Amino acid sequence: MNQKLNHLQEYMVSENIDVVYLDNPNTVAYFTNFESNPHERIVAYIVTQKDHFLFVPTLEKEEASSQSNVENIYSYNDEENPWKIIAEETSKLVEEINYYCVDETTLTVERDNNLRHAFLDRQKKNHTISSDDISAIIDQMRVVKEQDEIDKMIVAGELADEALQIGIDSLVEGITEQEVAAIIDMEMKKRGVSEMSFSTLVLFGDHAASPHGNPGERQLKQNEFVLFDLGVIYNGYASDVTRTIAFGEISEKEEEVYEVVLEAQRTAQEAVKPGMRAGELDQIARQVIADAGYGKYFNHRLGHGIGKTAHEFPSIHGSNETILEPGMCFSIEPGIYVPGEVGVRIEDCVYVTEDGCDPFTLMDKELYTIVI
Amino acid sequence: MNQKLNHLQEYMVSENIDVVYLDNPNTVAYFTNFESNPHERIVAYIVTQKDHFLFVPTLEKEEASSQSNVENIYSYNDEENPWKIIAEETSKLVEEINYYCVDETTLTVERDNNLRHAFLDRQKKNHTISSDDISAIIDQMRVVKEQDEIDKMIVAGELADEALQIGIDSLVEGITEQEVAAIIDMEMKKRGVSEMSFSTLVLFGDHAASPHGNPGERQLKQNEFVLFDLGVIYNGYASDVTRTIAFGEISEKEEEVYEVVLEAQRTAQEAVKPGMRAGELDQIARQVIADAGYGKYFNHRLGHGIGKTAHEFPSIHGSNETILEPGMCFSIEPGIYVPGEVGVRIEDCVYVTEDGCDPFTLMDKELYTIVI
Repeated sequence: MNQKLNHLQEYMVSENIDVVYLDNPNTVAYFTNFESNPHERIVAYIVTQKDHFLFVPTLEKEEASSQSNVENIYSYNDEENPWKIIAEETSKLVEEINYYCVDETTLTVERDNNLRHAFLDRQKKNHTISSDDISAIIDQMRVVKEQDEIDKMIVAGELADEALQIGIDSLVEGITEQEVAAIIDMEMKKRGVSEMSFSTLVLFGDHAASPHGNPGERQLKQNEFVLFDLGVIYNGYASDVTRTIAFGEISEKEEEVYEVVLEAQRTAQEAVKPGMRAGELDQIARQVIADAGYGKYFNHRLGHGIGKTAHEFPSIHGSNETILEPGMCFSIEPGIYVPGEVGVRIEDCVYVTEDGCDPFTLMDKELYTIVI
Repeated sequence: MNQKLNHLQEYMVSENIDVVYLDNPNTVAYFTNFESNPHERIVAYIVTQKDHFLFVPTLEKEEASSQSNVENIYSYNDEENPWKIIAEETSKLVEEINYYCVDETTLTVERDNNLRHAFLDRQKKNHTISSDDISAIIDQMRVVKEQDEIDKMIVAGELADEALQIGIDSLVEGITEQEVAAIIDMEMKKRGVSEMSFSTLVLFGDHAASPHGNPGERQLKQNEFVLFDLGVIYNGYASDVTRTIAFGEISEKEEEVYEVVLEAQRTAQEAVKPGMRAGELDQIARQVIADAGYGKYFNHRLGHGIGKTAHEFPSIHGSNETILEPGMCFSIEPGIYVPGEVGVRIEDCVYVTEDGCDPFTLMDKELYTIVI
């Protein structure tokens, strides 16, 4: 039984869609379990109302058939025209192609043109084909996680907690941000993690006041904050967590900022309920920070969806009208960044339950201080 | 003086192109020096015949203005409509938009639609706008590297040589592929490398016979091959190198396979000359391997272009008619993969010179044996 495929095919029948063509690697993996990184080559999943097949570069065929749940896998060499083969195999499964759908948010204009021409080439003269965007349906499917997906994300979260602890344990005066990030990544690799969700972020002191800074040669000094933002990919699913901890004693102002961010994070996390608007959460956290007088220093959205990647739907920004449902997964990560002075962010990713939410990462959020 | 911008604007004048819109992060960095990883957000470079501007998320504005060579940088918040702002700012620079170009090989269908509608919204009623693909021109510019680019790639190559040596030095019986890859990545991070060109590949023995295998829990045994395929990003430019070395004594068959691959690699590398077809190189290497009776075990193209990423133009496959020019950069990486038995690949990336080519990586290619 393949729930995800069934769901898509039911929709195709209801909308009279003859073919769906998908080539975003994450979407292909979502449906087929085949994780790939084809760069400029094509890994595509083609679905008709009654059938489906995977299309891969010849190099990947063995891997695709061992990983995926799809029986029919067709392939192409670098010197063949992939579109011709796709259209040919698709034509064997449908009488004629009148209406097909693609994911317009990821499909390139060039591929869209190639696919249309290849489909047209196989029809009678003067036959017209229309096409449409199916991304909203795919996103809607992917945004609500099934239990098998949440199970993987829980393990990804446990590994992220472990990675945080490794980072904390590595801190000594004089170590650089890059060295700490490298230690975390290496220890994760040793535990079988082949990929982090994104480039591991370790920022010291005032450097953490840039919300998108990169770890560099900056050395750790006594009595400053250390911000960790990291996650791992486990079985194709991502985790993402942020903690800011104190290396030695911090100033009263730093502690105040920390407490405001913590209250904003907790208030939002406790407010999560199915049926509420995603945007409301952002407003709740933002209000806490504004009330404390730091409103202008919280200059990004509250969070982002998470699943096969660390950035997907639903986006948790103030004007998002999406209604939260059980199974939706996203980050709650308020921050305060006073340029050149102090930066604090605290983040857990959560999944919505029947009556609230549960976090994937469990490390305590009270201010953690390393006594030196 | 901005040579790259001038080149593009001269082309725009000659073809009557009013606006070029580019949002591939590598292309944006190529023109502006601003390296970004905007995920679903938009980082775009908009060029008119006489002007240009960068468009970034508000979060990235500070970084963009410190890194880039562009004076005018406009930004948007997550809650604003980016297309409206882009069209508005573009309209201030041109009288009307009749014809614009995009990179259809990377632009998504959705963004293409949004951009067109935003441009149309700012024109008089019934005004029509046509658009076209500019990727061939951009690729043609990017495929021939300027000296400043080659200089960066030479350093990226030196770091890759160093990474290979680190990998070799780490080999002991029982170590896993993943552990070796983790050590390489960590040591590179310590040297200030924040990103590898791609996921570091370390494969042992028969495991190397899968050309796209991934490092796993496989432990190193005595008397087998170790295949390293790796590269680093240095100042926005990539390196890529492969060596296969012997850990202990290898069989006669393994040695024979090694020598065939080495001869194919050297023969192709020595054959590189400006004026020849890219495809010819593939044929030259393939012939060496076929003559030795291993033709069917060399099942991928000879190489790929390299520059800001490890996979760009020119592709070195048998039917590529591209004529090689000084400044083009690509890999020469023949391999023989006898499933379940032996896998050998040897790769250097080179840049075409006036009378041949020079490699970016210099580690000796004669069979390297670790005596145990």
